[in-house]
Amino acid sequence: MASYKLTYFNVTGLGEPIRFLLSYLGREFEDYRLPQDLWPSIKPNMPFGKVPVLEVDGKEAHQSTAIARYLGKEADLAGSDSWEDLQIDMAVDAFHDFRMALVGYFFEADKDLKEKKREPLMNNTAPFYLGKFDELVKQNNGYLANGKLSWGDIYFVACGSLINHIIEMDVFDKYENLRILRDNVHSIPQIKIWLETRPKTIF
Amino acid sequence: MASYKLTYFNVTGLGEPIRFLLSYLGREFEDYRLPQDLWPSIKPNMPFGKVPVLEVDGKEAHQSTAIARYLGKEADLAGSDSWEDLQIDMAVDAFHDFRMALVGYFFEADKDLKEKKREPLMNNTAPFYLGKFDELVKQNNGYLANGKLSWGDIYFVACGSLINHIIEMDVFDKYENLRILRDNVHSIPQIKIWLETRPKTIF
Repeated sequence: MASYKLTYFNVTGLGEPIRFLLSYLGREFEDYRLPQDLWPSIKPNMPFGKVPVLEVDGKEAHQSTAIARYLGKEADLAGSDSWEDLQIDMAVDAFHDFRMALVGYFFEADKDLKEKKREPLMNNTAPFYLGKFDELVKQNNGYLANGKLSWGDIYFVACGSLINHIIEMDVFDKYENLRILRDNVHSIPQIKIWLETRPKTIF
Repeated sequence: MASYKLTYFNVTGLGEPIRFLLSYLGREFEDYRLPQDLWPSIKPNMPFGKVPVLEVDGKEAHQSTAIARYLGKEADLAGSDSWEDLQIDMAVDAFHDFRMALVGYFFEADKDLKEKKREPLMNNTAPFYLGKFDELVKQNNGYLANGKLSWGDIYFVACGSLINHIIEMDVFDKYENLRILRDNVHSIPQIKIWLETRPKTIF
């Protein structure tokens, strides 16, 4: 059995899909949550200066989506052929387009600019993307792709608290099919245990 | 043989990795370059409102990376196992982090803000990422991952003219290993023919 060490901040964010997938796989992992004040000294040692980083038997992997796809294959949560893989990748990368709009607003340091970004994000971008994802899940039997569970669903749902935190509402309350998707993921026994035992964080 | 129609703008950008890969595969494709003034009427009909879109036997695929990974598998340009796939995905997603910084500057509509983004992009972000990619290629025998050609190399090199256009220099002149990577990709016979016959565009 490989050994795993995840380095990320003490939030869900982009580390959480990896925590979900390692939990799903039943793999023990060191869940290192770096204190924010240590970040400037740790950052230069991270590949491309970013986290999450997952060490697998001491070998460093970075990029949350790449790691999630890798773990998804281990977990038999990839597609059954390359066309199915494509459907999962399309949904996840569309999610990242949405996420970039979210974090571009959330991390905007200029207060006036942040306020300016708020209205189009909340009234156009967020409803547009969430509506599209809701429709996709409706067409796919409660999942994002191929009518069945994939690592893409786990990725999306694990990022749910980040989305909710940024847009200040519970998207799973508002969008019926996204709620079904979340419930499908959250009711997986290993994920359920992870949710009950994971550290409580601001998002 | 499947039929392919690519819809994108009349530039290289995110459409070009798909054009490179279809050329590599020797697949004929309709290279539809939509006139800019038609975009507002076409946009609502595109999945998630974006291009490139590749129709494969009439079925729409979107997201350039997802499509490139799919075509890469068809072309035997994926990794030989899931760890190798991970190395390719890591490099490509790190490239997208860099690309987001590039386009965040390039498409900034506010002139003052654009000027403000320029200095840190040109003096910090671009040298940081390009130096990292150069080092990666040095470690990987002239490629981004696994010491051999993958769809990730084709993706990166096909986006080269976009990068050069935005940062107003030829990165392949400045970075020796990136030049080797580019030459490795550009010297592939099918890519060479594509480069000689493709439409001339501003980038």
